[in-house]
Amino acid sequence: MNKNTKVNAAILIIGNEILSGRTQDTNTSTLATWLNSIGVKVNEVRIISDVEKTIVDNLNILRKENDYVFTTGGIGPTHDDITAESVAKAFGLKYEIHNEAFKILEAYYKKGEFNEGRQKMVWMPKNAELILNPTSGAPGFSVENVFCLPGVPSILKSMLGGLKDKIVGGEPILSLTISLRTVESEIANSLTKVQNQNKDVEIGSYPFFHAGKIGVSIVLRSENQNKIDICNSQILDLIKEKKIEVVDR
Amino acid sequence: MNKNTKVNAAILIIGNEILSGRTQDTNTSTLATWLNSIGVKVNEVRIISDVEKTIVDNLNILRKENDYVFTTGGIGPTHDDITAESVAKAFGLKYEIHNEAFKILEAYYKKGEFNEGRQKMVWMPKNAELILNPTSGAPGFSVENVFCLPGVPSILKSMLGGLKDKIVGGEPILSLTISLRTVESEIANSLTKVQNQNKDVEIGSYPFFHAGKIGVSIVLRSENQNKIDICNSQILDLIKEKKIEVVDR
Repeated sequence: MNKNTKVNAAILIIGNEILSGRTQDTNTSTLATWLNSIGVKVNEVRIISDVEKTIVDNLNILRKENDYVFTTGGIGPTHDDITAESVAKAFGLKYEIHNEAFKILEAYYKKGEFNEGRQKMVWMPKNAELILNPTSGAPGFSVENVFCLPGVPSILKSMLGGLKDKIVGGEPILSLTISLRTVESEIANSLTKVQNQNKDVEIGSYPFFHAGKIGVSIVLRSENQNKIDICNSQILDLIKEKKIEVVDR
Repeated sequence: MNKNTKVNAAILIIGNEILSGRTQDTNTSTLATWLNSIGVKVNEVRIISDVEKTIVDNLNILRKENDYVFTTGGIGPTHDDITAESVAKAFGLKYEIHNEAFKILEAYYKKGEFNEGRQKMVWMPKNAELILNPTSGAPGFSVENVFCLPGVPSILKSMLGGLKDKIVGGEPILSLTISLRTVESEIANSLTKVQNQNKDVEIGSYPFFHAGKIGVSIVLRSENQNKIDICNSQILDLIKEKKIEVVDR
């Protein structure tokens, strides 16, 4: 892929525990931040339940619409871990024992402890590529542009380093945040004008409440630092004109 | 809707700030927990960018597939707040000033402060029903089965009380958590058998790391307390058999 190409991704969070509200997802934020840093923009996130047809259908849509898809969750040893089998179905591949994964887990566990439950974790789509897991042994895997990671946040984080060489990003997406002691409605019209004059910069406006005070963070995002700088100076001009205070956050 | 009917919902999180990883979404967990308590099951969550076509397309899919759709984000006064206009497009409705919302905000702000920026927040799809906002004045709104809420978590939370009468749920979804001092692979096969014997109970298995110790939480979910109890006693039997310790979490 050319370094100037825009590269995008979708994240597919698989897990009833997120949909029920029991567990707060943090993997989206971890993955999105990491992907941005290597020049991959997250287009869409879907959180879906542990149901095979749901996983297959969503995966087949997202993998065609995006350069990369990252799934989280459902690759453990229990009955509700059905991601690997579902990915195999989505690609029309056999679901079988992955020899390399088998060897890794056989060496990881003490003699006699690599039981049937654990052996489920080496069943993968045929010819899947492994994503090594430095935390707890059981690897993730990828098939074509789909990368399957575990749901436990600390384990997922530990696997990103080994994934980096497999993802080809575009220009990193740069951002600049300007935090102001104001309210959105005070700057809304001026900000619209700045956005219209800077079509290539994504300008976001986010109210915040911090230490008992309200404010607005304006976030400028683009692959081009020069464009961010121009946009920034226009915003600083309008702030000056309106006598709005810039604050640290 | 009959109390015995299963009622489901989708959540549509609108906001580049979540997709970029800058902001950690917490509205999913808030909404899902609240919806569960009133008997509405969240089927799917999608997080999408502030792009009109994206909002319209996703909304038109989700509102047909679900009893309810809840959107969060994009109803403030700035240029990147395009949820109301997008909802109008999705339903083929005019986007116009909502008289009741206008009166609310006119009364809310001091004389002279209800400026053009703020007036943007009273533009809504024609005949939208208001969702009152006890925190910061600007109301949310609903059109048919689509309920549009703000992105700021504290404001969203404050609006749920006023929403309750507008949502007709089914039987509340009950849950029971059993936390064990074990690892998933130790109980995986037995749990599969319990799941196969209790098809109407959703059994989830989630490893946890707490105070330096590992464990597994088993979560049983069903509308029927009796079915949960039967399933629970089968799990307690297998735990006893395997001499696994139950722990508080």
